[in-house]
Amino acid sequence: MRTAAPWVPAFAEMTIEMTARVDAMLRAEIDALYADYAHCLDNDALEEWPEFFTEDCRYRITSAENYEAGLPLGIVYATSKAMLVDRVMALRKANIYEPQRYRHMIGAIKIGAAEAEGVQPVVANLLVVRTMQDGAMTLFAAGRYVDRLVRKSSVWKFGGKDVVLDSRQIDTLLAIPL
Amino acid sequence: MRTAAPWVPAFAEMTIEMTARVDAMLRAEIDALYADYAHCLDNDALEEWPEFFTEDCRYRITSAENYEAGLPLGIVYATSKAMLVDRVMALRKANIYEPQRYRHMIGAIKIGAAEAEGVQPVVANLLVVRTMQDGAMTLFAAGRYVDRLVRKSSVWKFGGKDVVLDSRQIDTLLAIPL
Amino acid sequence: MRTAAPWVPAFAEMTIEMTARVDAMLRAEIDALYADYAHCLDNDALEEWPEFFTEDCRYRITSAENYEAGLPLGIVYATSKAMLVDRVMALRKANIYEPQRYRHMIGAIKIGAAEAEGVQPVVANLLVVRTMQDGAMTLFAAGRYVDRLVRKSSVWKFGGKDVVLDSRQIDTLLAIPL
Repeated sequence: MRTAAPWVPAFAEMTIEMTARVDAMLRAEIDALYADYAHCLDNDALEEWPEFFTEDCRYRITSAENYEAGLPLGIVYATSKAMLVDRVMALRKANIYEPQRYRHMIGAIKIGAAEAEGVQPVVANLLVVRTMQDGAMTLFAAGRYVDRLVRKSSVWKFGGKDVVLDSRQIDTLLAIPL
Repeated sequence: MRTAAPWVPAFAEMTIEMTARVDAMLRAEIDALYADYAHCLDNDALEEWPEFFTEDCRYRITSAENYEAGLPLGIVYATSKAMLVDRVMALRKANIYEPQRYRHMIGAIKIGAAEAEGVQPVVANLLVVRTMQDGAMTLFAAGRYVDRLVRKSSVWKFGGKDVVLDSRQIDTLLAIPL
Repeated sequence: MRTAAPWVPAFAEMTIEMTARVDAMLRAEIDALYADYAHCLDNDALEEWPEFFTEDCRYRITSAENYEAGLPLGIVYATSKAMLVDRVMALRKANIYEPQRYRHMIGAIKIGAAEAEGVQPVVANLLVVRTMQDGAMTLFAAGRYVDRLVRKSSVWKFGGKDVVLDSRQIDTLLAIPL
C-alpha cells in the first residue's frame, strides 16, 4: 500500500524541494502583479491604478541621485491611496486629450527575503517607451522600482513603491503615474 | 503511519495552494512559449514561425487606433497557418539580403481566465529594437500582443494573435512577422 | 483512509504533471538568477559580478557576425573567474568617475534541455539603456546571452556566458561588463 505520493522526495531533500516550490508559486504571483500593473497604466485605466496599493501606502517618484543621497521627498510623493485617487482625478482634469501612448517593460524582478509573513520587498527594472501621435517612439523613462509588497486576503498590494529614475531630469514625467 | 505527504496543507488552504501551484506551472509554460517565439523571430528562423500557430489560426498586425475602433482588418491579416507559410515564402523571395537584426523584448505577460480547458487568453507587452548594419539601434515597434492560446497534445499554440502597435505609422513593418 | 494527497493525479498524467512542476521550479530559479545579475550590474556592484561565475568559467562579448562565423575570440574574452576579478579592478582604476547609468532589460529566457544533472543551457534577450548625466537616454546594447549554467551546492552559476551583440560596432562597449 502506498502511504504517500510516489514523488515525495527523501526527507533530506524535502526542505530544498519545498522552498523551490514555494518560491515558484511566489514568483508566479508577483510576475502576475507586475503584468497587471503594466497593462493598467498602458491601457490608461488610471482609475484602477490606486487599487494596486494599500490604504496607507507610500508612493514616490524620485531620481537615483536623490534616492542615493537619502532625500526623502520626490517629484511625486503620496502617503495614502486616497492621495493617489486625488492625483488621478487631477490628471484627468488637466489632460483633456492625451494623444501619446506609453508602454511599460518591467523586468529583472528580484524578490527579496520576506520581512514577515506576507510582507515582501521586490526590486524590478523599468523601461517606458512613449509613442507620439505621429508615430515617433522615444525612451521616456528608465529606472527601477523599489517596492514593498503586502499580501491581504490572498492578494498582493503595494504597501510602498519608490520609482527611482536613472535620469535627474524628470520634469516631463510629472504627467503620468509610473 | 503517514497517510499523506508531510507538507499537505489543511483542507481549508488546499484550494488556494492548488490554484497557486497550477498557476505557477501555467506561467512557466507560457513564459517558455513567448521566449521560444522571440528567439525564433530574432534568429530569422521564419520557416519555423508558422509552427507556433494552429491550422485555423487568426494572425493580425494592426494599430491601437484601429483595434480600439473595432476595425477588423489590419496591415497584415491571415486566417490560417497556411497563409503564414505563404507569407514567409513571399518574404524570402522579396528579401534576398537582410542586413538588419531585430530583438524582441516581451514582458508583462498577463494570463487571463481560461475560456475553457486548454484555451487561454494572454496579453503581453512588446518592444522590438532594430540594429542596422552600421550598428545604429532604433526602437522599431512598441505595442502589445492580444493572444488566444490553445493547448494541443501538451503543447501551447497561438489560435489567435493580434499584434496591436502603439503607432499608426506602421508601413515599414510590412517586412517581417512580429 | 486517504493514502495519498487528494490532488495526486492518475499515474498516466503524473509524468506530465511532474515535468511541469519541475520546469516551473527551474524557471523560477533561473529568472531569479538573471534578475540578480541585472541588478548587480545596474547598481554598479562590479566587485560582486565575478561571483556569478564558476572558477573555470568562459566569458565573452562578441558580435553576432563573429559569433555566427565561428570566430572564437571576442571584444572581451576571459577563461576564468580570476580574469573577471582582474577586469573589474582595471575598470575601477580606469574610471575614476562614472557619470552614466545603465539599465539591463533581460527577457525571452529560453531554458534548453539539460546537458546533464545541473548543467543547463539558457539563451536570453538583452537590451541595455544608458542614461547620461544630462538625462539623455540611449539604446546602448541589444543582443542575446548564450549561457551555460552550472548548479553547485543549490546555487546556479555561469559556467559560460557569451554576450552576442547585434551590432558590429561595439568599441564603446569595452568599458563595462554586460
